[in-house]
Amino acid sequence: MTKDDWLDADNAALFTDFYQLTMLQAYFREEMREDAVFDLFVRRLGRRNYLVACGLDTVLRYLENLHFTEQAVDFVGSQGSFDQAFLDYLDRFRFTGDVYAVAEGTPVFGDEPIIEVVAPIGEAQLVETFLLNQITFQTNAATKASRVRRAAGERLVSDFGMRRMHGGDAALKAARAFYVAGVDATSNVLAGQLYGIPMIGTMAHSYVEAHDQEKGAFEAFAGIFPGSTLLVDTYDTLEGIRAVVDLAASEADTFSVGGVRLDSGDLAHLSAEARRMLDEHGLEHVKIVASGSLDEHIIADLIEGGAPIDAFGVGTKMGTISDMPYLDSAYKLSGYAGTPRMKLSSEKSNLPGKKQVFRTIRGGVADGDVIAEAEEEIEGLPLLQQVMRNGRRLPAGTRTLEEIREHARSALAVLPDDLRGLTAREPPYSVELSARLRRTREETRRRLEAGPAGIGRH
Amino acid sequence: MTKDDWLDADNAALFTDFYQLTMLQAYFREEMREDAVFDLFVRRLGRRNYLVACGLDTVLRYLENLHFTEQAVDFVGSQGSFDQAFLDYLDRFRFTGDVYAVAEGTPVFGDEPIIEVVAPIGEAQLVETFLLNQITFQTNAATKASRVRRAAGERLVSDFGMRRMHGGDAALKAARAFYVAGVDATSNVLAGQLYGIPMIGTMAHSYVEAHDQEKGAFEAFAGIFPGSTLLVDTYDTLEGIRAVVDLAASEADTFSVGGVRLDSGDLAHLSAEARRMLDEHGLEHVKIVASGSLDEHIIADLIEGGAPIDAFGVGTKMGTISDMPYLDSAYKLSGYAGTPRMKLSSEKSNLPGKKQVFRTIRGGVADGDVIAEAEEEIEGLPLLQQVMRNGRRLPAGTRTLEEIREHARSALAVLPDDLRGLTAREPPYSVELSARLRRTREETRRRLEAGPAGIGRH
Repeated sequence: MTKDDWLDADNAALFTDFYQLTMLQAYFREEMREDAVFDLFVRRLGRRNYLVACGLDTVLRYLENLHFTEQAVDFVGSQGSFDQAFLDYLDRFRFTGDVYAVAEGTPVFGDEPIIEVVAPIGEAQLVETFLLNQITFQTNAATKASRVRRAAGERLVSDFGMRRMHGGDAALKAARAFYVAGVDATSNVLAGQLYGIPMIGTMAHSYVEAHDQEKGAFEAFAGIFPGSTLLVDTYDTLEGIRAVVDLAASEADTFSVGGVRLDSGDLAHLSAEARRMLDEHGLEHVKIVASGSLDEHIIADLIEGGAPIDAFGVGTKMGTISDMPYLDSAYKLSGYAGTPRMKLSSEKSNLPGKKQVFRTIRGGVADGDVIAEAEEEIEGLPLLQQVMRNGRRLPAGTRTLEEIREHARSALAVLPDDLRGLTAREPPYSVELSARLRRTREETRRRLEAGPAGIGRH
Repeated sequence: MTKDDWLDADNAALFTDFYQLTMLQAYFREEMREDAVFDLFVRRLGRRNYLVACGLDTVLRYLENLHFTEQAVDFVGSQGSFDQAFLDYLDRFRFTGDVYAVAEGTPVFGDEPIIEVVAPIGEAQLVETFLLNQITFQTNAATKASRVRRAAGERLVSDFGMRRMHGGDAALKAARAFYVAGVDATSNVLAGQLYGIPMIGTMAHSYVEAHDQEKGAFEAFAGIFPGSTLLVDTYDTLEGIRAVVDLAASEADTFSVGGVRLDSGDLAHLSAEARRMLDEHGLEHVKIVASGSLDEHIIADLIEGGAPIDAFGVGTKMGTISDMPYLDSAYKLSGYAGTPRMKLSSEKSNLPGKKQVFRTIRGGVADGDVIAEAEEEIEGLPLLQQVMRNGRRLPAGTRTLEEIREHARSALAVLPDDLRGLTAREPPYSVELSARLRRTREETRRRLEAGPAGIGRH
């Protein structure tokens, strides 16, 4: 049992659906190696008014590094369905394609390509699983956090969710996505190290319980970490606050507590009581941090009700995106060998060919998007930029996390105000297809339906 | 942008909440190093009648390997709140404790310890985040899959969910958890390599679309992979099946298609039509695979309605556990320095001291559990076993995946039949506390509430 069960840069090539490998073998045997165009997009937004695109950096790092180790090639070979020439091809496999993408942090809408991959069909096919896995989750996480950020206004928001997120990668990528969307800090130390996100921590109930007296625990902790936030609800919240007040009285000038954390009970009532008790004793500078089953709706209600909470620790519900744990994402072939391609099924069709999205901004407010063919020139801000050429990153694909976060802030600020709200806006944001794209879609559909002479029919 | 953003064996020590490090520093400064007991358990089961414990192997591997690299120690040191003696302690930090656990694959219920950690308090505290992260998700995933397994009866079930799961670690650990719970296969190649789980794949719509004719795509693919399953809904499902029938007619003896996959539309109707069309042409041996937004309820309905489906590919809803994306899990201090400890808050209290769970089995059926103190001898099967001593795994913690899977099968088979159903059973399974544990809980509560002389009060 010594083998690692982590995903890492060396085994990421095998992080794919088995059918990608069989299709790759088939394309190889059939000598199908012309360029394909694949779009990654979300079909319907469900409970969201907008999405915040996220995950491109992870994707580009994966594409730059993509290779099969000798061990990986041996494993594929051991499956019996693959020929030696194909295994040799895997051995020298690299991603050599072009990638177009919406900048991380940009709001996007249904059917709009977040990423377009243009590469020899086998390369573009193999990477589907990883791209969907990362972009779906990171975009979903950034979107959720953007709602929490909106609800909390100017108050501090920290990610406390790693303990119940879906595994280690989720906790890392979500911490980053949350930060992109405007969350201020994380409790996740590894995310702090890898991404440079500010870290916040208070104390756990166990620390209080391990001490013989609550006040003794507070005194010891604040002595070691001046400015720290004390968790006051281990036994009885108001008694816990009284212990803080007593500590302030006994320590006088050396008192160094920065805040108290409420983690259970009626947060509206308890925060008001806490504020009153603290203020009564001249502790106006002691902040109130709330946590425990928070989400954007509860935070909005607390603030609406005037709860004097300075900071929110938001955990499981944001961390697992529990109201909508997945997006209706897809990665679809839209062109091969210079010909537009698409699925026909009515619920799940897609848009043919290479595309561009143009956003119209009037008076500083986004007024609607047009999805067009890539070569079209339409008024508005083009959202897709080339971020990789021949397998190498371009400058547009190398933004720092701080740049991405600032871009998200300014791009979200352009959305109509009611679109940023927590409830569904009617009508939704306008996304139209250009006349030329509509025409291509109809032509492609007709060609596919044209019977034996057309493609797609036997 | 070259640093890796994966979790791996070398950086796992930093995969923790920041407050664990500050508490660790505080325990170190206060010279608190006696043994603590921490329990990992789920408070309430929510929409589930039972849970399937999963994730122990990951946890034990983490504990065996736990260490701070020089880079990790430097990072902690750079945060300014930590002293050099503490950083030296981190440098030589190893997990030296004992671990008791329910075997992976065992059904468990609310408040029952899944893992108990007994270790010097700092060690037991630091590992909280990782243990909760892995056990919560893996147990939740195994539980969901056990419901899907139940719904599907003897039919083949494959995990198709990796593309929308929450990151890479989730996709690996879920594939393993699903297999533990009786799912037959996965599409996840890396999970196939790391865990030896059988892999299944069919083909994607893009493969069909990239060919000029659907039938041409089928012919090429089946020629390369005899026995393969063809995806028939790219353009029109019944036309797709007709293409398979035509292929059988034209290929005669060389026809080697093993199955057809339906991925959209009315699966009950389409599977019946597909079966009829295939059988009419002597293709009784061609299997029908269904996929697309499946979960245990839809599968149960399809089977109840007599849909002639041989295999299910279950993706997003199982993969993200979308009806219940997290468990109400906790990791709580229940003892320190030989004294039982607990939280008092009514919704979130926990059970003091070291414990054991006894399961009564009558006539081959589980009839109720008793949570008792560790030293008690009570009738029934004890569920917690020691799996690690002084930081080293014991034989009980080294089962192979196949052994775990077989254990899950037999331990689930002992549950009352209606408890395995998809709806909430009333009354729920009986879990009682032993008289002695109830007494200890009351004594501990009284001691904590006894005012200034007791612990927990200032």
